[in-house]
Amino acid sequence: MNQEQLYDQIRKKSSFLCIGLDTEINRIPGHLKKAEFPVFEFNKSIIDSTHHLAVAYKPNTAFYECLGASGWLQLEKTIRYIRENYPDVFVIADAKRGDIGNTSKKYAETFFKQLDCDAVTVAPYMGSDSVLPFLEYPGKWVILLTLTSNQGAGDFQFHGSPGGKHLFEALLHKSLEWGTPENMMYVVGATRASMLVKVREIVPDHFLLIPGVGAQGGDLEDVVRYGMNKRCGLLVNSSRAIIYAGTEETFAETAREKAREVQIQMEKLLP
Amino acid sequence: MNQEQLYDQIRKKSSFLCIGLDTEINRIPGHLKKAEFPVFEFNKSIIDSTHHLAVAYKPNTAFYECLGASGWLQLEKTIRYIRENYPDVFVIADAKRGDIGNTSKKYAETFFKQLDCDAVTVAPYMGSDSVLPFLEYPGKWVILLTLTSNQGAGDFQFHGSPGGKHLFEALLHKSLEWGTPENMMYVVGATRASMLVKVREIVPDHFLLIPGVGAQGGDLEDVVRYGMNKRCGLLVNSSRAIIYAGTEETFAETAREKAREVQIQMEKLLP
Repeated sequence: MNQEQLYDQIRKKSSFLCIGLDTEINRIPGHLKKAEFPVFEFNKSIIDSTHHLAVAYKPNTAFYECLGASGWLQLEKTIRYIRENYPDVFVIADAKRGDIGNTSKKYAETFFKQLDCDAVTVAPYMGSDSVLPFLEYPGKWVILLTLTSNQGAGDFQFHGSPGGKHLFEALLHKSLEWGTPENMMYVVGATRASMLVKVREIVPDHFLLIPGVGAQGGDLEDVVRYGMNKRCGLLVNSSRAIIYAGTEETFAETAREKAREVQIQMEKLLP
Repeated sequence: MNQEQLYDQIRKKSSFLCIGLDTEINRIPGHLKKAEFPVFEFNKSIIDSTHHLAVAYKPNTAFYECLGASGWLQLEKTIRYIRENYPDVFVIADAKRGDIGNTSKKYAETFFKQLDCDAVTVAPYMGSDSVLPFLEYPGKWVILLTLTSNQGAGDFQFHGSPGGKHLFEALLHKSLEWGTPENMMYVVGATRASMLVKVREIVPDHFLLIPGVGAQGGDLEDVVRYGMNKRCGLLVNSSRAIIYAGTEETFAETAREKAREVQIQMEKLLP
């Protein structure tokens, strides 16, 4: 999916919501646990209930891998279900991969050819040849970890002696040699909203994927104040606060209500 | 497996060789391609032929994931085969994972509980809470990406203004707050052997996992000169140069000969 198609969808839905499908087998309602593919059944219900409110879904691979081969099958089934039923929705594999060139090439194959995602999150520690193989697929996107929303983000992402660039700034500058606003986005945690100003100085036109709103404590209005550009340029992710809003058989409707609340807030904030 | 058990094996086999099971379906001999689990069959033959020469195996998850659910099943089968037949061998999942705390916890479950590996490689960009969940398993190991062997390694791993610490040095210092020589190792590429001196100043007693000998051009004698400590402290990995040494039905014997050459070299270099 290209940038214009993503903006079309943002306009059509008046939303820049991404829903994180971090589906834990222990947290899904009891009546689904007996299904052959319980995680997939849960996702399917969430997707059917929320696809008109969200422009993107973001399964995090950790929650599928921990179920072994069956988990991968359920990840495949989830993505195929979105592709077949809601082809205008953007799909992000939150995989945080990154390896030497010939190995990153295999990861790119996995997420873009085998799973047919639109985008994959990439960990930048290993530099250019760990990222570039993902950029060889037209219409596909790399989302680089830049400033993450977790507690440990401060350990290295601000590394750099006084007077020099912070690591995340060096990363942003370097990445401009690799990709464009048509194939690269950046992860910037909502818990660091004030840092969005610095990020926007370097990448004014790119999309930013913002996790950390909701369960992790980030604030949507702050994110918009500091991070939105003139077209929007944001995908704001919420996972647990939406998908686990309800715990009963009506969980999907509860998730829809929660997503609708966020979408209404977003509608007011869109340019 | 604890450090003493790993040293026992190094002594017993006079080897510190790790064989990388980066098994590509396109590169395995034709007669195996018809099997139900061709990647597993290939691995099984390599393992049977080389287990007395190698102290560790290191499957890289990229080569399994790109085959979807079947790839994960073959990864599981490979690890189970090693566990059941050669229980003294150290198994490293080269997965380069790392995510926010509750998600890294799932990855730790995957690699330590579900797959029962001894160690997993972890990407440090996201800091402490992305690493610590892997350290909660007694007898299991984190192997932190530190200085990698690829071309792009220079993009960020040496980040830090003049007068300050390089990123990889800051990482080594920080990691001493997290783990010990009993549960943490570091990836240091053989292509940067002279940097091993700097690494050893900070972590004299830890094991280092050294990829890049062989196909990537690193030199074993240089690695030993700069990186070996008084007990050894090295696991040197070779993947393609061993597992693809032969291309015919006799590939496993050719791999054994190649592994034996490396092991003989190692025997001479051990303290």
